[in-house]
Amino acid sequence: METDGGAGNVVRNKKLMLKDYIKGSPKESDLHLTTESIELKVPQGSNAVLVKVLYLSIDPYQYIRSTKIEKPGYFSSYSPGSVMASYGVGRVLESGHSDFQKGDLVWGTTGWEEYSLITEPETLFKIQHSDVPLSYYLGVLVVPSFPNTGLTAYVGFYEFCAAKKGETVFISSAFGAVGQLVGQLAKLMGCYVVGSAGSQEKVDLLKNKLGFDAAFNYKEEKNLDDTLKRHFPEGIDICFDNVGGKMLDAVLLNMKLNGRIAHCGMISQYTLDEPEGIKNMMNIIYKRLRLEGFVVTDHYHLFPKFLDFMLPCIREGKIVYVEDISEALESCPAALVGLFNSSKLGKKVVIVATELITSQPNCSVLLGQY
Amino acid sequence: METDGGAGNVVRNKKLMLKDYIKGSPKESDLHLTTESIELKVPQGSNAVLVKVLYLSIDPYQYIRSTKIEKPGYFSSYSPGSVMASYGVGRVLESGHSDFQKGDLVWGTTGWEEYSLITEPETLFKIQHSDVPLSYYLGVLVVPSFPNTGLTAYVGFYEFCAAKKGETVFISSAFGAVGQLVGQLAKLMGCYVVGSAGSQEKVDLLKNKLGFDAAFNYKEEKNLDDTLKRHFPEGIDICFDNVGGKMLDAVLLNMKLNGRIAHCGMISQYTLDEPEGIKNMMNIIYKRLRLEGFVVTDHYHLFPKFLDFMLPCIREGKIVYVEDISEALESCPAALVGLFNSSKLGKKVVIVATELITSQPNCSVLLGQY
Repeated sequence: METDGGAGNVVRNKKLMLKDYIKGSPKESDLHLTTESIELKVPQGSNAVLVKVLYLSIDPYQYIRSTKIEKPGYFSSYSPGSVMASYGVGRVLESGHSDFQKGDLVWGTTGWEEYSLITEPETLFKIQHSDVPLSYYLGVLVVPSFPNTGLTAYVGFYEFCAAKKGETVFISSAFGAVGQLVGQLAKLMGCYVVGSAGSQEKVDLLKNKLGFDAAFNYKEEKNLDDTLKRHFPEGIDICFDNVGGKMLDAVLLNMKLNGRIAHCGMISQYTLDEPEGIKNMMNIIYKRLRLEGFVVTDHYHLFPKFLDFMLPCIREGKIVYVEDISEALESCPAALVGLFNSSKLGKKVVIVATELITSQPNCSVLLGQY
Repeated sequence: METDGGAGNVVRNKKLMLKDYIKGSPKESDLHLTTESIELKVPQGSNAVLVKVLYLSIDPYQYIRSTKIEKPGYFSSYSPGSVMASYGVGRVLESGHSDFQKGDLVWGTTGWEEYSLITEPETLFKIQHSDVPLSYYLGVLVVPSFPNTGLTAYVGFYEFCAAKKGETVFISSAFGAVGQLVGQLAKLMGCYVVGSAGSQEKVDLLKNKLGFDAAFNYKEEKNLDDTLKRHFPEGIDICFDNVGGKMLDAVLLNMKLNGRIAHCGMISQYTLDEPEGIKNMMNIIYKRLRLEGFVVTDHYHLFPKFLDFMLPCIREGKIVYVEDISEALESCPAALVGLFNSSKLGKKVVIVATELITSQPNCSVLLGQY
């Protein structure tokens, strides 16, 4: 335990608050930037940990938690007027908990703010290996937490898709934080892999950088049923669905007998007042389909297995991970909006502070930062 | 092989033809009764079998096959102008196939007609045991064929619901040919079982005759979500879905975490020009649900296991089977219509000819014929 016992420094702390429950598509104005004073000190006798935030993860679930949408069994909503929160990477400034020392690099749930007082330090984890980009602790790699995009992709693909070599795989939102990994796992398995995305740039990257067999820009397609029939003349064995809605309806029409759909997300639906109705449900019977939803939090026991698999893949360059990085806390609202308008390229990360970036080992950064 | 080699008798043969593809709800006028002459003789040198039809099975899939609805991987449509067909029980009048002798009782696919010339006798099976009602060969018991309502219920419940003692089970169209059996299987397993049906009479029978813990008439309920919440305050572990549509949408809202939905049919949707959209799909993710469609034809390998289980249950009265029996070929159109307006009570059977009924052993008929 390392505290100085005296009065800490008082500094300005910028933070992003949720104004009110978000309705419809998120707007930057749904969040409010405020500045408060904070004493860089943990309260006397508390086991809290004070963290300087370095990176924040921006994910669709933060939008879901900002709405009043009923989501029993899922995560609760943020309270209007409270600070936004997500996974972050930070440096410990002061600790009331014996597991953490001043100067430690940590990851865990932090506020969307420059300095975060973590009052539940059991949600915080020390970063042991810094030979990978620190931002990977927000998603792809060593975070047994939600939303670990790497574990999500791994669990979804290996536990729920039950893919076999030679099968046909369709991934919607294929350039997203999870989709890009699922596609690469499917290629490693020897599947035929097609992805959909929202821009020609993403389509090109899917094919040329991530090794997808084909990809299409759903915004340019007049009839998704026709599009899928063109790419899968004999049908789809496995759909990894991040999108829902019209895309899912077209997928149902194009599944093969005994096909499997793993439901990871339905990003096309979150911002609608009322979800689109899925009409082709009879195909579930005609084609003996299995649809399964999953949330990665239920599968943390697979984390060691995942790590044994994924770490070498990353280090050997068999799996690449594309992040879309922007800078400054002030860019978080735009980053949240960007999740829903196809503007981001890969996993979205915001650098809140840069003090440690240069001190990080210059590991071979496999990702492209476009 | 038993043929008399001479000219057979020529008799009148009533038959029911499909006029044109049915659109929307079936009407009696969609079928056309015609009378043709038939020589009671199999063509010289053919291996066909001539059958006098005794019972016919009336099932929702005959409606589906009468429409132009696309159903890849499922059964093809009947051709307009052709005779309707379904499973039937009959007596062999003449046989060109060595497996069948004049006088044999058989079951298999027969036309909706008084005399049926079966040109593919490999689809015909000899009835070995007549210590159960012959009508049971159309569904519940010893028919390893589609639609074997008994095997359908057995496979759906044991292979797809993965039920455990104490779990909560909801069955839609619970008094139907399959639903009534699933409910009894679930009760034998020690589950809490609630069913929906379309009349108070059925509701009473579900509770008083079939042992359901509760049942409701969906036509009397204003809000199916509220209804399900009332019956399942802690949620539904397992839904055996025969209905689809609005009922399924309400079910999705009321499933427990890790719930399972076995899709057996979606009778509320078949007659609609366009299916209702299912809006609560996000619950598949929130609640980590598994939805699976199945068709009993894929599971015939389980037939011996099924028989070992079901025959004693029937003989010991642990499982009862309710049939709704009407008489004469002319009643088939009304029987088909009755599948969709909640008027039938249990598995629908039409007696086409009665000549053998009295000669059948007077076994303990466990079913009620209302």
